[in-house]
Amino acid sequence: MGKNEKMVQAITSREEDFSRWYTDICLRAELCSYSSVKGCIILRPYGYGIWELISCELDRRFKETGHQNVMMPLFIPEGMLQKEKDHVEGFAPEVAWVTHGGDEQLAERLCVRPTSETLFCDHYADIIESWRDLPKLYNQWVSVVRWEKTTRPFLRTREFFWQEGHTAHATEEEAVRETLDMLDLYAEFYQNALAIPVLRGLKSESEKFAGAVNTYTVEAMMHDGKALQAGTTHYLGDGFARAFDIQFTDKDNTLRYIHQTSWGISSRSIGGIIMVHGDDDGLILPPAVAPYQVVVIPIAAHKQGVGEKAAELVDRLKAAGLRVILDDSDRMPGWKYAEYEMKGVPIRLEIGPRDIEKGQCIAVSRDNREKRELPLDQAADLVPSLLEALHDRIYQKAKKSMESRIYDVESWDRFVETMEKTPGFIRAAWCGSEDCEAKVKEETTATSRCIADAKVPGSSSCVVCGKPALHTVFWGKAY
Amino acid sequence: MGKNEKMVQAITSREEDFSRWYTDICLRAELCSYSSVKGCIILRPYGYGIWELISCELDRRFKETGHQNVMMPLFIPEGMLQKEKDHVEGFAPEVAWVTHGGDEQLAERLCVRPTSETLFCDHYADIIESWRDLPKLYNQWVSVVRWEKTTRPFLRTREFFWQEGHTAHATEEEAVRETLDMLDLYAEFYQNALAIPVLRGLKSESEKFAGAVNTYTVEAMMHDGKALQAGTTHYLGDGFARAFDIQFTDKDNTLRYIHQTSWGISSRSIGGIIMVHGDDDGLILPPAVAPYQVVVIPIAAHKQGVGEKAAELVDRLKAAGLRVILDDSDRMPGWKYAEYEMKGVPIRLEIGPRDIEKGQCIAVSRDNREKRELPLDQAADLVPSLLEALHDRIYQKAKKSMESRIYDVESWDRFVETMEKTPGFIRAAWCGSEDCEAKVKEETTATSRCIADAKVPGSSSCVVCGKPALHTVFWGKAY
Repeated sequence: MGKNEKMVQAITSREEDFSRWYTDICLRAELCSYSSVKGCIILRPYGYGIWELISCELDRRFKETGHQNVMMPLFIPEGMLQKEKDHVEGFAPEVAWVTHGGDEQLAERLCVRPTSETLFCDHYADIIESWRDLPKLYNQWVSVVRWEKTTRPFLRTREFFWQEGHTAHATEEEAVRETLDMLDLYAEFYQNALAIPVLRGLKSESEKFAGAVNTYTVEAMMHDGKALQAGTTHYLGDGFARAFDIQFTDKDNTLRYIHQTSWGISSRSIGGIIMVHGDDDGLILPPAVAPYQVVVIPIAAHKQGVGEKAAELVDRLKAAGLRVILDDSDRMPGWKYAEYEMKGVPIRLEIGPRDIEKGQCIAVSRDNREKRELPLDQAADLVPSLLEALHDRIYQKAKKSMESRIYDVESWDRFVETMEKTPGFIRAAWCGSEDCEAKVKEETTATSRCIADAKVPGSSSCVVCGKPALHTVFWGKAY
Repeated sequence: MGKNEKMVQAITSREEDFSRWYTDICLRAELCSYSSVKGCIILRPYGYGIWELISCELDRRFKETGHQNVMMPLFIPEGMLQKEKDHVEGFAPEVAWVTHGGDEQLAERLCVRPTSETLFCDHYADIIESWRDLPKLYNQWVSVVRWEKTTRPFLRTREFFWQEGHTAHATEEEAVRETLDMLDLYAEFYQNALAIPVLRGLKSESEKFAGAVNTYTVEAMMHDGKALQAGTTHYLGDGFARAFDIQFTDKDNTLRYIHQTSWGISSRSIGGIIMVHGDDDGLILPPAVAPYQVVVIPIAAHKQGVGEKAAELVDRLKAAGLRVILDDSDRMPGWKYAEYEMKGVPIRLEIGPRDIEKGQCIAVSRDNREKRELPLDQAADLVPSLLEALHDRIYQKAKKSMESRIYDVESWDRFVETMEKTPGFIRAAWCGSEDCEAKVKEETTATSRCIADAKVPGSSSCVVCGKPALHTVFWGKAY
């Protein structure tokens, strides 16, 4: 029995084994394949299609806010990577090194970019001279390489796909504003494109980006209660500018260092979509990034007129700008239902002889399986509102699910117990010491996900050591 | 004087030094910058913008013809590269080798992909089982790395950007058809998107792709008469399938090897645009891939109403789907004219107080500097036809230029003389022997660009050795 003959197989349920359920979906929905290169995955057409739509949604937002795309080289010379001390310490242990070109050994090793701050700095030093050259609001769409020990499709791979924004500004104030604006853009993107609610806040010193002054993050909660760092924005201060000597002549004719930011969202966002929305029958895709928003399935397709009416319906939907697939193969409708549920297509339209008699088709929403009769001549007008409603439902469901699993905790015993027994985030006060953070990690495997606000009201005390608290922090186990 | 204060500097003229003229344009039009990594360039916003539009034009054509995008890993294990003998011989001498991940030496070296046939084969062996799985019509948009000795922006760089199509078919006939269809698609793209006429034909044995049965090419003629190999399509036969053991169960239940193709167009096409259309004042961009199709320049912008009318005009043009830039900076109009001519913006619209009185603006075409008055309320309707006319003019000019420099030559002396004295292509008969090809290369530095037809009529004899000819070949010096 060839692979096209097989029935749609059930996947592991989430309750049985969440991790295996995740991998089952990645493979059965044909998002990716393992490659012969350990830790690198192949993005198959369906998975890459989702990434294309994610890119498209983000790229539009970047361009609307004045950003421009560029392309830096794939390689960073060892000496260039070493210029900013904190940065190289953070990244050098996990980079892939090119040592030979053809048969010749290189005079200086090149690393395959793990991130491109140093390359942008090198370029900025070359092109920025005056305040008139600022700001530079650049972004690039590339893959980067980090030699991780443990890997997992989309969530942690040695090569992954992302966008990296790198901006240069005349003042600290403007750069900080950019850092926060991009954080807001990311949160808005997650909500409106991926239907994923996120918490946003500042990373602690020990969790921030190597070389940053401040790192901000959007954190999402997965179905199993664990956190996914879904995107980060970094205020880099003028540290890189000093290391790379990037100065500009300001309006008052003084030489000043630029202030920089960087920010990125990666293909791990696909892992987030799977783990926030998916169910035991497979993926559920937010309409904005679904390669097919609608699947049309003819019933009793051999009967006169069914094929034609189905094709007509597809044409109308496409003309309305929808992404549609027609499955008129010779498989049983039941097989098709299961297949497109696995792939998370938001709306299924069934059309058979009896429907045609009544001038209608049946719409089934992927998330709640609700059925609705749609008059054929109004289908193209009504499907967009079904898609919108689905988006809103899965967003509200995810939001409720996250909010109901944020626990306010004031004592250490209760912290340990909650982290062990109830999946989710803990909101608790923290004194700001790295020792307390380390103790949380060691005893519960959880980490500080983000600082919710600058100060806690009144006289709260640190949930770990009991000393006066500086911050309210969201804590959680993370992917 | 900062770089934004400088006047637009004249560039080297084409007649004085074509090679320097080329580099001047790359840098002054801000298409690219040199990076600190030898042989790798930085694509600046304007250059990357052209590449985005090229990608968009090609990608639409690929999708319309049923192709799907995927993403293979960046790395190829040494053992995988070695599986197809001819292929590894062609590429191994010029690949970059990764030997270390972090501090650890890898058990097997990985090369940074110079092309991805082997990666696709490895994947196809995994996912193709039955005739129902065929054809696979895959493409990817990536950068690849070849460790070239001599490099030049866009034309030959160690890292370059391209699309690589890789398809798998049940029969030889179908794969050959795909190879030729994609060649036609490339020729159509060059004509209709880049306004570049191309010759198409078969590569000789010595010029074909390492591992291919046949390589087809589209060849363009640059302003200096030299050839640019502008895109290639390869019929790979079943050689890779045998090396990677990619078999499928056919309808008759027999196991058969798949037949494959691959094809690519790269960022060197940007070099082609520069060298076919550019003039001594800078770039001339075909409208389909111009980041800005129109620049609007207000004259006497401080006068009442000029700024508003210019902004109105920009809004109308944008609403009509045109890519427009407004330059309302405080520079002199003359500076702006030169600047946007350097950047090759197809249409310039000037709007000043006297124009506004007459309810018009002045349109100037980049190629022939022709001026035309456009009523303001019709500008958005008329500009598209100006763009179309410009496209047609620069295409016809390039076509005439190419055709007038194709020389029919029958004797060896005349061949050598023509190749030395008159830049262009020679069309001449060839016996098919590699020795004659080698002699041409050695004595004239020209190569066989493509075989124009399978047989030559009548009793022609080889232009090199005088023996009976098998083919008519286009010969030329190439980039």
